[in-house]
Amino acid sequence: MPTKVITVERDVLADAQASAEEFRRARTAAGTCVVNLLSSPGSGKTSLLAAMAQYWSGKHRVAVLTGDLATDRDAQRLAPYVDVLQMTTGGACHLEIPLVAKAFQRLPRQELDFLFIENVGNLVCPASHDVGEHLRVVLLSVTEGDDKPGKYPKMFRRSQALVLSKLDLLPYVPFSVEAAIEDARRIQPALDVLTVSALRGDGIAAWCEYLERQRQSLHAGHPA
Amino acid sequence: MPTKVITVERDVLADAQASAEEFRRARTAAGTCVVNLLSSPGSGKTSLLAAMAQYWSGKHRVAVLTGDLATDRDAQRLAPYVDVLQMTTGGACHLEIPLVAKAFQRLPRQELDFLFIENVGNLVCPASHDVGEHLRVVLLSVTEGDDKPGKYPKMFRRSQALVLSKLDLLPYVPFSVEAAIEDARRIQPALDVLTVSALRGDGIAAWCEYLERQRQSLHAGHPA
Repeated sequence: MPTKVITVERDVLADAQASAEEFRRARTAAGTCVVNLLSSPGSGKTSLLAAMAQYWSGKHRVAVLTGDLATDRDAQRLAPYVDVLQMTTGGACHLEIPLVAKAFQRLPRQELDFLFIENVGNLVCPASHDVGEHLRVVLLSVTEGDDKPGKYPKMFRRSQALVLSKLDLLPYVPFSVEAAIEDARRIQPALDVLTVSALRGDGIAAWCEYLERQRQSLHAGHPA
Repeated sequence: MPTKVITVERDVLADAQASAEEFRRARTAAGTCVVNLLSSPGSGKTSLLAAMAQYWSGKHRVAVLTGDLATDRDAQRLAPYVDVLQMTTGGACHLEIPLVAKAFQRLPRQELDFLFIENVGNLVCPASHDVGEHLRVVLLSVTEGDDKPGKYPKMFRRSQALVLSKLDLLPYVPFSVEAAIEDARRIQPALDVLTVSALRGDGIAAWCEYLERQRQSLHAGHPA
């Protein structure tokens, strides 16, 4: 009976939303800013996190939950710099709050200034799932082309910040930073935009300061 | 009732599989080799198709069905070189056979040597859907990192060929061609591997000859 199916699915989605809200509330109360990082595969999420962790170098209490279909490669890359735990979805194309909440409890410490959730590399499906974050950030590397926001609108519509990554490769690729920003802001006019090269270190300080301001606004009772 | 739900889903999947088989059989009979192109967003599927169409320049009867969540940008890029029709999924993360079969009927001509299906940019979900292709090809650009096959195993396991793209950027990125191939062949030992730079034209002739051989093997009654 189709109506029965729809009812069940609604309950599941409502449960997930309630769990995400609860997770977010608990982290807000603990002073932890939760950042959900999303992008295509290979846009530089892990490299950005490594550069950031090295820039802060112990200034903040930071942990990362990395998400992938398989392997613990991202966690291995980040382990020298930050507390990190790998979540594997076993094939699923995005993270959901039950897995995130369970992984969080397994971190060596839960008292944090920042918790980063590195989502599965996928510019489509993760856009539809609240994982209890305060701030949703989408990365777009300049090698992917400046036409992507319009082609993947939900991801950009539901993000608060856009990080244009791999700026060091700009001289070698057909990509207009202005065109990409214009295309993204046509979808989401309030989008904050940052540019980085994790390889060279460009823009990492500004990215870290941006995150610190976002966390401040949580403390001030104005969630980002 | 959960059992009811599972039964319905099985019927839908069986119907899709039957439709894909039927579409493939009809194209085989007509001498058309159907190629399903898959990759992350921005790996260079459209650029490869444009370079290929220009290289062949009327040698074969070719058409392209491009898939995206939104916009007809890919079709606009390809229109100067080849018959092309844009499919938009309205948010869905992959193509399915009903949309492909419907779009095929709307092409200006159905008698083709090659039909290319440019799937939605997504290294996860399209791997699970047979769209009636003879040959499934996954692209991986060197800017995405040589660690991707192991992290997205189903996509590589279910492909017959791997095209490493954007080889012109190799001097500027941390990427080992050997490591990427080794990682991919650990998952799918029979994978054919090609390398291209659509921007410079490197490897386009070899890619086109590879496709011609695949089409020959269809004629000879040995589907690729």
